[in-house]
Amino acid sequence: MAKRKMILDLDTGIDDAMAIAYAVGAPDVDLIGIISSYGNVLVDQAAKNSLQILALLGATDVPVYVGEPHSSTTEHFDVMPISAQIHGKNGIGEVDLPEPTRQPEKQSGVDFLIDAVHQYGSDLTLVPTGPLTNLAAAIEKAPDIASTIGNVTIMGGALTVPGNVSHFAEANINQDAEAANTVFTSDIKLTMVGLDVTLRTLLTTKETGQWRDLKTTAGERFADIVDYYIDAYKVTSPHLHGCALHDPLAVGVALDPSFVRTLDLNMFVQASGEDYGRTIGDPARLTEANPNVTVALTVDTDRYLDTFMTYLTDLFKQN
Amino acid sequence: MAKRKMILDLDTGIDDAMAIAYAVGAPDVDLIGIISSYGNVLVDQAAKNSLQILALLGATDVPVYVGEPHSSTTEHFDVMPISAQIHGKNGIGEVDLPEPTRQPEKQSGVDFLIDAVHQYGSDLTLVPTGPLTNLAAAIEKAPDIASTIGNVTIMGGALTVPGNVSHFAEANINQDAEAANTVFTSDIKLTMVGLDVTLRTLLTTKETGQWRDLKTTAGERFADIVDYYIDAYKVTSPHLHGCALHDPLAVGVALDPSFVRTLDLNMFVQASGEDYGRTIGDPARLTEANPNVTVALTVDTDRYLDTFMTYLTDLFKQN
Repeated sequence: MAKRKMILDLDTGIDDAMAIAYAVGAPDVDLIGIISSYGNVLVDQAAKNSLQILALLGATDVPVYVGEPHSSTTEHFDVMPISAQIHGKNGIGEVDLPEPTRQPEKQSGVDFLIDAVHQYGSDLTLVPTGPLTNLAAAIEKAPDIASTIGNVTIMGGALTVPGNVSHFAEANINQDAEAANTVFTSDIKLTMVGLDVTLRTLLTTKETGQWRDLKTTAGERFADIVDYYIDAYKVTSPHLHGCALHDPLAVGVALDPSFVRTLDLNMFVQASGEDYGRTIGDPARLTEANPNVTVALTVDTDRYLDTFMTYLTDLFKQN
Repeated sequence: MAKRKMILDLDTGIDDAMAIAYAVGAPDVDLIGIISSYGNVLVDQAAKNSLQILALLGATDVPVYVGEPHSSTTEHFDVMPISAQIHGKNGIGEVDLPEPTRQPEKQSGVDFLIDAVHQYGSDLTLVPTGPLTNLAAAIEKAPDIASTIGNVTIMGGALTVPGNVSHFAEANINQDAEAANTVFTSDIKLTMVGLDVTLRTLLTTKETGQWRDLKTTAGERFADIVDYYIDAYKVTSPHLHGCALHDPLAVGVALDPSFVRTLDLNMFVQASGEDYGRTIGDPARLTEANPNVTVALTVDTDRYLDTFMTYLTDLFKQN
């Protein structure tokens, strides 16, 4: 099978950890690197978490790069209390994993991304599941990459449902709406996997119980980590009856777009005012041909969950 | 051809006038009545305009009923200045049509609607293109009609684009968000034809010129009326390069749903706060089966415009 070159850009919390597992477990992925972002945790913690999760999954050959430490419009970043509540203070559900034996790479995440686009072009798939700060910085530094990168599928935004940090803003977009607007209005062919579909894709303790029953280190630790997330959802979103598979769904859709039904739409991101962070169609470009954003609206939840459980369970069996 | 029983609920401004012409011109419609609403104009002006437009089109057998004069949460209604700017103070582009020779019916619009649902049930199509005050009042007075009415297709709302009276609210919903929420969260199977599609469906002076060239009274008066609207759009929405066919598109979709691609979604209408009037998916009911709202997302503009021009031009030729 021809493998797809993939880069993940993660603010590694719990669903990011599942995104790593999905990419490592998918038979058709060559995961060439993970870029760290601030968001669910600080950027250095995200890098550490990615290294620890990769080690837990036996993927010790995947390099981790450190990205921007804060948004394009601020000089500093503090983790939001709600992020710590959902992901734990360490971002991985207060589970203690062994200290990483590797360090992040010396090259910056932004430069790694630019070099990778120059090297692989349309063969490269990028999946950002945190703020879009790194991608926007890369576009600003090397504008040519916008039209040459193959596939950018983000977890972020909300079109047909309200946001989750305000009535308007989804958490990743909310971290840096200006960077998000740079990406949404660029030449990039973007697929948006937002709350529209991730809130339809839920995991429960039934599934984490299957991992725990494997009696492997990876299975048990992932069950511990994700159960923390499921417990947090019981408090923050009791109506859902499960936890949302935000980030791993974006990886799934990047690999198999047929999981979702979509709408092509020219969009922008509101970067000021009461609706800061809103991802919405641009009325002035509604009738323009070839919109650059493809928004996922509905998802074949059963088929996705089957694939998700197959990839993760097979991986956890071996680790 | 079996004709569809149809009721229009109109705040008769200029695009409502085109909706009347579409319904009168469509070969498969039996237009059994028009209910008046406040909105683009006061409710009595809307009734008068409907009677004048019907007379202009030779449809002097269609009764007109007067609906609620203001929203469900207010005691009074004033026309918004922007409405007068777009539709003219008289609602029909300051064009003087002959005084109506008929009067509105004595029965209230709400009671007429309830009786019609009881008489025709699933054979009845209702197209409200103004505030949803009359329909909400009818549901509250006769709750059984929500599950028995055949087809309700509204012009109103905005899901994938911002509103037109605020970033959130489309004008019709904005008039009475509480009534709209009653309708959206009822048992009614609702089709929403909102700004998502109406801003993609534009008319220009090229088309009104074709009506004018017919040299008939209806053709010339409609060209005068709609040119006023097109001129107003040049000021309020110069990026569109035409006027939006809001209300006649709803009639078209009610008759032929294949004009649009849709999303089924359980929705609510925000009835307070900064996002008053926003029509949006309900995250708590995202995974419930059989959503009651079908939202139009894209439209086959060319085929719709062909049909629109055929129906209206053929009608204007005869009047």
